[in-house]
Amino acid sequence: MKIIIVGASGTLGKHVTAALKSNHEIITAGSKSGDIQVDINSPESIGKFYEQAGKFDALVSTTGHGHFGPLTAMTYADFMKGINSKLMGQVNLVLMGQHFINPKGSFTLTSGILSEDPIVLGSNLSAVNGALEAFVKAAAIELENGVRINTISPGVVEDSPGYFPYFPGHIPVTMARVAQAYVKSVLGAQTGQVYKVF
Amino acid sequence: MKIIIVGASGTLGKHVTAALKSNHEIITAGSKSGDIQVDINSPESIGKFYEQAGKFDALVSTTGHGHFGPLTAMTYADFMKGINSKLMGQVNLVLMGQHFINPKGSFTLTSGILSEDPIVLGSNLSAVNGALEAFVKAAAIELENGVRINTISPGVVEDSPGYFPYFPGHIPVTMARVAQAYVKSVLGAQTGQVYKVF
Repeated sequence: MKIIIVGASGTLGKHVTAALKSNHEIITAGSKSGDIQVDINSPESIGKFYEQAGKFDALVSTTGHGHFGPLTAMTYADFMKGINSKLMGQVNLVLMGQHFINPKGSFTLTSGILSEDPIVLGSNLSAVNGALEAFVKAAAIELENGVRINTISPGVVEDSPGYFPYFPGHIPVTMARVAQAYVKSVLGAQTGQVYKVF
Repeated sequence: MKIIIVGASGTLGKHVTAALKSNHEIITAGSKSGDIQVDINSPESIGKFYEQAGKFDALVSTTGHGHFGPLTAMTYADFMKGINSKLMGQVNLVLMGQHFINPKGSFTLTSGILSEDPIVLGSNLSAVNGALEAFVKAAAIELENGVRINTISPGVVEDSPGYFPYFPGHIPVTMARVAQAYVKSVLGAQTGQVYKVF
């Protein structure tokens, strides 16, 4: 299977890459690293990226960021950071990628626990994650040729101790568990699912 | 109570206005009608709107639209219609309005059933509604001075028969039931809630 991993050098992406690489052809992608560079904030860059990557069987996205800060000081521009990057970056990977993916292929996106279990400073990422989770449910009933779509919703992960103070009482999840959720999405047969890893 | 209703002349807004006007001071707002005009797509317009409206106790938003069309032909620009209007328009009413609202005031937004029960052609609105529902849960834990926030998630409503063919098997909900959900949000004491009317 030819699998593109966008964000392959990141905290999640490197574990997902490790979990899939022994049995599959992996194309790594990132903003500055990997086999192909792509700026997910730019529809033009995503278009060029797919032209370069060619037909594929699965796309995994572990990329995109949002604004982390107090609601009371949050501005339109702050909020748009997550909209443009983690939300529209990943949505655009699907909107444009649906014209390059092979029949029975799959898209696997990354949302996160904040869609349903909010923390202080996290309202932008809550909105972004909620949008992604609703989007995969909706996109799943329209994608053609048996193409599937799911999203992985991790809790705070063990490899990101810098975030622990912002997630009081959360039990960090192991990278191995998170990586297996991506494997389940790519190699399984379900669609329209939110795989919660928390 | 001084209540601002943005989208007061719309299908939902006129019923909400009717349900609240006998006992409260209502300021109606809309893109072209109402006591004050506001273009929710424009942060500048929202800023001027709040300067004009002054302090208030509750803001109800029944406004904003999205793109309705097939995923297979959907573009970045199509998807941004719902992001800019129904999502960011309403989010911005909160981000900017939090600096004008009275203590113990409330924001009541409008999402919709597509966040969890998708239909063909509805993926943009699914994402937008999912974002709004996650946003109110997150914003509720950060708003200060006892300010509350909820969203109403209506199913297809009886006053919009033009949408019925796109919602096969859905039972249209009465305008009276939908309007009462807004009343519950404004006059009740809950926060961070999604009131489902379907």
